[in-house]
Amino acid sequence: MIKILLIQGANMNWLGKRQPEIYGSTGAAELDGLLSAYAIEHDFELQIFYTNHMGAVLDRLYEAAEDGVAAVVMNPGGFTHAGQAIKDCILGTSLTYVEVHISNHFKRGIHSTIAEAADAVVMGPGVHAYILGLNAALHLATEADR
Amino acid sequence: MIKILLIQGANMNWLGKRQPEIYGSTGAAELDGLLSAYAIEHDFELQIFYTNHMGAVLDRLYEAAEDGVAAVVMNPGGFTHAGQAIKDCILGTSLTYVEVHISNHFKRGIHSTIAEAADAVVMGPGVHAYILGLNAALHLATEADR
Amino acid sequence: MIKILLIQGANMNWLGKRQPEIYGSTGAAELDGLLSAYAIEHDFELQIFYTNHMGAVLDRLYEAAEDGVAAVVMNPGGFTHAGQAIKDCILGTSLTYVEVHISNHFKRGIHSTIAEAADAVVMGPGVHAYILGLNAALHLATEADR
Amino acid sequence: MIKILLIQGANMNWLGKRQPEIYGSTGAAELDGLLSAYAIEHDFELQIFYTNHMGAVLDRLYEAAEDGVAAVVMNPGGFTHAGQAIKDCILGTSLTYVEVHISNHFKRGIHSTIAEAADAVVMGPGVHAYILGLNAALHLATEADR
Amino acid sequence: MIKILLIQGANMNWLGKRQPEIYGSTGAAELDGLLSAYAIEHDFELQIFYTNHMGAVLDRLYEAAEDGVAAVVMNPGGFTHAGQAIKDCILGTSLTYVEVHISNHFKRGIHSTIAEAADAVVMGPGVHAYILGLNAALHLATEADR
Amino acid sequence: MIKILLIQGANMNWLGKRQPEIYGSTGAAELDGLLSAYAIEHDFELQIFYTNHMGAVLDRLYEAAEDGVAAVVMNPGGFTHAGQAIKDCILGTSLTYVEVHISNHFKRGIHSTIAEAADAVVMGPGVHAYILGLNAALHLATEADR
Amino acid sequence: MIKILLIQGANMNWLGKRQPEIYGSTGAAELDGLLSAYAIEHDFELQIFYTNHMGAVLDRLYEAAEDGVAAVVMNPGGFTHAGQAIKDCILGTSLTYVEVHISNHFKRGIHSTIAEAADAVVMGPGVHAYILGLNAALHLATEADR
Amino acid sequence: MIKILLIQGANMNWLGKRQPEIYGSTGAAELDGLLSAYAIEHDFELQIFYTNHMGAVLDRLYEAAEDGVAAVVMNPGGFTHAGQAIKDCILGTSLTYVEVHISNHFKRGIHSTIAEAADAVVMGPGVHAYILGLNAALHLATEADR
Amino acid sequence: MIKILLIQGANMNWLGKRQPEIYGSTGAAELDGLLSAYAIEHDFELQIFYTNHMGAVLDRLYEAAEDGVAAVVMNPGGFTHAGQAIKDCILGTSLTYVEVHISNHFKRGIHSTIAEAADAVVMGPGVHAYILGLNAALHLATEADR
Amino acid sequence: MIKILLIQGANMNWLGKRQPEIYGSTGAAELDGLLSAYAIEHDFELQIFYTNHMGAVLDRLYEAAEDGVAAVVMNPGGFTHAGQAIKDCILGTSLTYVEVHISNHFKRGIHSTIAEAADAVVMGPGVHAYILGLNAALHLATEADR
Amino acid sequence: MIKILLIQGANMNWLGKRQPEIYGSTGAAELDGLLSAYAIEHDFELQIFYTNHMGAVLDRLYEAAEDGVAAVVMNPGGFTHAGQAIKDCILGTSLTYVEVHISNHFKRGIHSTIAEAADAVVMGPGVHAYILGLNAALHLATEADR
Amino acid sequence: MIKILLIQGANMNWLGKRQPEIYGSTGAAELDGLLSAYAIEHDFELQIFYTNHMGAVLDRLYEAAEDGVAAVVMNPGGFTHAGQAIKDCILGTSLTYVEVHISNHFKRGIHSTIAEAADAVVMGPGVHAYILGLNAALHLATEADR
Repeated sequence: MIKILLIQGANMNWLGKRQPEIYGSTGAAELDGLLSAYAIEHDFELQIFYTNHMGAVLDRLYEAAEDGVAAVVMNPGGFTHAGQAIKDCILGTSLTYVEVHISNHFKRGIHSTIAEAADAVVMGPGVHAYILGLNAALHLATEADR
Repeated sequence: MIKILLIQGANMNWLGKRQPEIYGSTGAAELDGLLSAYAIEHDFELQIFYTNHMGAVLDRLYEAAEDGVAAVVMNPGGFTHAGQAIKDCILGTSLTYVEVHISNHFKRGIHSTIAEAADAVVMGPGVHAYILGLNAALHLATEADR
Repeated sequence: MIKILLIQGANMNWLGKRQPEIYGSTGAAELDGLLSAYAIEHDFELQIFYTNHMGAVLDRLYEAAEDGVAAVVMNPGGFTHAGQAIKDCILGTSLTYVEVHISNHFKRGIHSTIAEAADAVVMGPGVHAYILGLNAALHLATEADR
Repeated sequence: MIKILLIQGANMNWLGKRQPEIYGSTGAAELDGLLSAYAIEHDFELQIFYTNHMGAVLDRLYEAAEDGVAAVVMNPGGFTHAGQAIKDCILGTSLTYVEVHISNHFKRGIHSTIAEAADAVVMGPGVHAYILGLNAALHLATEADR
Repeated sequence: MIKILLIQGANMNWLGKRQPEIYGSTGAAELDGLLSAYAIEHDFELQIFYTNHMGAVLDRLYEAAEDGVAAVVMNPGGFTHAGQAIKDCILGTSLTYVEVHISNHFKRGIHSTIAEAADAVVMGPGVHAYILGLNAALHLATEADR
Repeated sequence: MIKILLIQGANMNWLGKRQPEIYGSTGAAELDGLLSAYAIEHDFELQIFYTNHMGAVLDRLYEAAEDGVAAVVMNPGGFTHAGQAIKDCILGTSLTYVEVHISNHFKRGIHSTIAEAADAVVMGPGVHAYILGLNAALHLATEADR
Repeated sequence: MIKILLIQGANMNWLGKRQPEIYGSTGAAELDGLLSAYAIEHDFELQIFYTNHMGAVLDRLYEAAEDGVAAVVMNPGGFTHAGQAIKDCILGTSLTYVEVHISNHFKRGIHSTIAEAADAVVMGPGVHAYILGLNAALHLATEADR
Repeated sequence: MIKILLIQGANMNWLGKRQPEIYGSTGAAELDGLLSAYAIEHDFELQIFYTNHMGAVLDRLYEAAEDGVAAVVMNPGGFTHAGQAIKDCILGTSLTYVEVHISNHFKRGIHSTIAEAADAVVMGPGVHAYILGLNAALHLATEADR
Repeated sequence: MIKILLIQGANMNWLGKRQPEIYGSTGAAELDGLLSAYAIEHDFELQIFYTNHMGAVLDRLYEAAEDGVAAVVMNPGGFTHAGQAIKDCILGTSLTYVEVHISNHFKRGIHSTIAEAADAVVMGPGVHAYILGLNAALHLATEADR
Repeated sequence: MIKILLIQGANMNWLGKRQPEIYGSTGAAELDGLLSAYAIEHDFELQIFYTNHMGAVLDRLYEAAEDGVAAVVMNPGGFTHAGQAIKDCILGTSLTYVEVHISNHFKRGIHSTIAEAADAVVMGPGVHAYILGLNAALHLATEADR
Repeated sequence: MIKILLIQGANMNWLGKRQPEIYGSTGAAELDGLLSAYAIEHDFELQIFYTNHMGAVLDRLYEAAEDGVAAVVMNPGGFTHAGQAIKDCILGTSLTYVEVHISNHFKRGIHSTIAEAADAVVMGPGVHAYILGLNAALHLATEADR
Repeated sequence: MIKILLIQGANMNWLGKRQPEIYGSTGAAELDGLLSAYAIEHDFELQIFYTNHMGAVLDRLYEAAEDGVAAVVMNPGGFTHAGQAIKDCILGTSLTYVEVHISNHFKRGIHSTIAEAADAVVMGPGVHAYILGLNAALHLATEADR
């Protein structure tokens, strides 16, 4: 069964409580449920990892690389701004990587350094971005014809 | 039935022929077939419009705004770089707008001004980006809970 | 009788419908009526030309230069941002040129390249800017003492 | 009767003597006469104030704000370049403000910080700019429909 | 009793030992004593938290937000330079936030991104900055009339 | 008795009337009363000087330097943006200098050149900033152990 | 017989009339005659295409790519400044491309984005630049040894 | 007899007291005596004017222009940084202008906008710069062959 | 016996596995063996510390400073890009510091902020950079004549 | 007989040996032969000068200016990047100047300061650029009608 | 007898012939005569050195430093733009250095890196700048009281 | 026997005399002795070349490339700042290149363009940098396994 790892970066633990006018009102637990259901429906294993520590993201990515994870989906949250170490790690491990953001960064003048290493980027349509991100990851992990 | 307009901007007519190492080998006609099938499957009307003339994009968008189109999906192609007039038009018409790109612009150092007006942006996973873009447009047009 | 050409650039066709909090609620047809009345009152011929195609502006300006138009008033609208070709054309034809904008660009951080070629610029006081622009054009076309 | 205050900023006292190829040959006294006649014709009270001291502009603006002046027209002259304090003052007093310049700043690469606080800006058509500026101020002070 | 949390960021554990010509010779323990005395005198609960790990600051701030802390005073120390994640966290939790620095950053050309989210900033007068910072936090937490 | 000079720079005379959503509703006279009471309570002589003329600030600072003033507290107001001459003066006279601002400049993207010469800076907590500024000035003027 | 396409971009229709001190007095028709003679003399087919519409350049280039044109010579004129879409098109079609300008852009501080895709660039020696450009195009199209 | 005006700008009144390690220990009065002696020796009338008010510099320059002053020597002091109004004034009055600075600005990374309007600039050799400046002014005022 | 601490920063744990075309194929364990042999041969104590957590670097450096470590050699790896906190720490502890990188950063356009605090920097000759770095550290720690 | 001087700047002596994928495989001697043949065919005197010393270029240009050389063709090679002194020299001597480069600099992001002083610039079509450059120089030297 | 070395940098050999509207019509030989007369009159030894080779300036400066030259006056001419090596040399030898330019660089937007190492700078009053430069050098070499 | 060429660039001839607080007190001759001894000990031929002329560096490098030199070690000294021609030469000749600097450039804000072409860079540990540089060069020239 294909393994996909979802990483929720800095400040994502407060999803639904932090600035709902930007990030919507869906909480972290509710989102996890939604995505797990999607994983079951599409027949892949979904691992979800929340952390506010950037070093923990690196440790988790190296673990994933050794554990045969097919693709990583990440909302880097607060790691977006100074995430060069994560970018280097993704380039180094050659993990398939899809970056998602709940809001459209182009509207807010934010640049994600990590996204420079992404195979796909989805930004903007609320928490539905996670569904599209998992869809893209699954597509990239299973299709060889692109 | 929900109407979605897909605009293929400058140079997209050569899809499959232009730099296949970046844009893949799926041609324009083949892609149109794929997307029309997706529209039928998901029960919405898909209008497809190709043009190399930026003024024609504006004319088409005003027509769409008056014609009750629910959402616009666009790959601006060569209009990406100096598309401020299109951005102004989208902001002015309040059309729901999803921007798609076949490759990940962050990897190539390209900035899309038009994307600053987008409700969602999908970049990167080959022509599968169009499927994700239509999915996002449909979601945005039908869901009121975001 | 003095001929003055008014060009309404990209997106101006939606005047009154597009972002009325910025551009006011006067529609394009209503404005045309107002300005035509002004032309009759001040005894000059007013030609009005709307287009979303930048190339059409160039074609129209060369036509005007050959047709003895005394001055051009233009709200470049969406051509403001990348209008260098229009600027070159104005410099090349030596047409008297007055640029008008409904809102004050300095407040919004917008720079008009075309305005670098203008004999006069009016920005800000709502659609009254068109009246002041025609007034300036008439003044420039009839007075030799400046 | 509506009161309009005209402020002539730094170096405007030498109008007609300073660089006539840019600013024209109309002297300060001659201009004052012209504008006073315009005020009588259009039935408003015109106050004219010349100064080379930026602090005096602030003092005069606060006095105007307390004295019921309906609008201020100013050619900031030499205050254009570092006039942030004047801009703050205009924003603070909420005075209707029209900025005029005899020449078109876009042609000369000059940026006016004060103009960021203007309700209208007129640049370029020689000293006729003052007439258009008074016209705009009168329009803004008397019309409520914009 | 009002709770105020003081966070001492990266490198603050060496206070008094690190570059005393900039930061003074008061050590961390001595400072803690001083501030605790101030808290007793002004009748509020003072929690002090030292860490060199940025993720730990985030974890502690979310804990504080759930624990009813009235205001946070922080000297971000080494987190000053790349602290966008902390800034996002403060904006997200809506905690009252006062930033203090022992030296005046304007003199040293340092910019604190986190300070963009502060309700008050005190920089410069040696470790007395902490007293002023607590004073400001107390004032902001207890006064409703600002 | 220790003498402290408070300078209220350009536009501060309208305190309480100018943009109260930023600067609060405390008026200049009311503030002066508050600060004078603080001076009596803490037993120092407080001189207050309002001006919209930058040259007058320099004249007043040289007078203070010769008159044995122990510290200067200033809200430069509109002089903040181009106040290099004041900065040079403070550096030249070696006066102890504390800069205060009612709002947090980091939030508004403002840089104070004068603050580069300050011994302490307080920004943000409403007019309470003046109390903290006087406190800092008193501390700096009386303590020798920093 | 080798086919070479010459494109004359925006504003080139006024050659000889527009700013002759920069562009010389040779008119468009006269130039066409000169170049046609050169084509006959050197035995290749010369197609000449004038347009003020950028989209028309793209359409014409795709037509050329399908029609077996060996090389394109273009003076982009007013398209020089925002011609990224043309650049993308040239890179996509792999057409041999020679860019010519009548004056030396380095002297005038102009940068041509399209020229980044050129196989050769000739700037400066008046309309003789077209002769050198055709010579270069012919050389590139017929020689295999570079 | 040739008249030369020396203007001592902001902060120059404290010459000899302000940062003597940069500006030397010669006081203002002592310098005035030295320069007056030089004027007598070289047979020209020397007017000396000190001010901390920029507006006063403008007023004095217009007075000089009307009074037949042959050349102006100025150390703008604190006006150096934002002195565009003075520069405009000098360009407008066409006064011969020599700028002097006691220290070499290139060493300290300072740029004088006013110096862009100077006929000569002397920087660096202590207060001897004033002697060289007067020498240059005299040379420029009396020699017609340059 | 002299103690030297080697810190291997973010992502260095994958040495030999991550992008071998840049970083070579020597693995972390193999390198540790090589460097330990070098330490024995040159008679100093070598401590090796790997971490992906920046805070852990700070903690380890303060521990080293208190433990009498003579010099630190570090390859900051992924901490290179936003390592200001580490730089502050090194400056604060006054530890002798040698920075090493396996590849030449100048070739790749990378800037290390931490290197601004280094006593020596070695970049480029593969993992041999570590040998040179230890050599430099030993030299700096034992020689007093530089 | 018309004299044309060809200067081969820094590193051009290794033509054919240095990076043949960029500069082609034609060696310096082979090129000299080619160009001499062209000179004979077109009846002008060709002087060829190779140097790695920038001062020698200046000396040679002044010699040429005094020796009646009609035009200079130069590939500045390694002098391209910091060649302001050569540019000044060309402007000073008023020599007709044609700059040639074997590759298209726009493709490689290189800017030639010297080219700002050129009458014509040819870049890109391999060593054929020299033939076009000589052609341009001959044209400029013999035609008076541009 | 005090020795002063005058260096005339790149392109100064054409003084009087190169752009006389900027540099005047005094030739190199005539200037040398003027300055030698000045040296005799003021009783110092003047050495004059012309070169177009930057390396030769360095060699000559080291020779001067060993030969007891009291001060160097230099017009770097074409070395102005990339003269960092000369600046390093002047800082290294501690030679008293006066830089002169015939025209005022501030007017022309030129920055001299070498001037950052100067004890005095004179720009602008034609070749009289050399006289002022020698005067300054003599003053600096003989006076100890600055 | 392996040949290594050491180039000492501009200003290195004054080593030990120039700014000893930065560069140390070891003179050029003393250093040459040290390095020659190192060459004998490690059994390679060391050629040492000092020059202040950049062109001479190029000539020497081409000579070395033809003479079978295995590696070049260079301290470019004053050529560091504008050494693009040298960089081009190194890239063209494919010589193994090690750049050394006595002090750490990152501390001083200096960037070496030439270092972008280096196989290894050593900066900082005094003249010991030369020993490390020769060690690196030897390593690169003899080892094939990196």
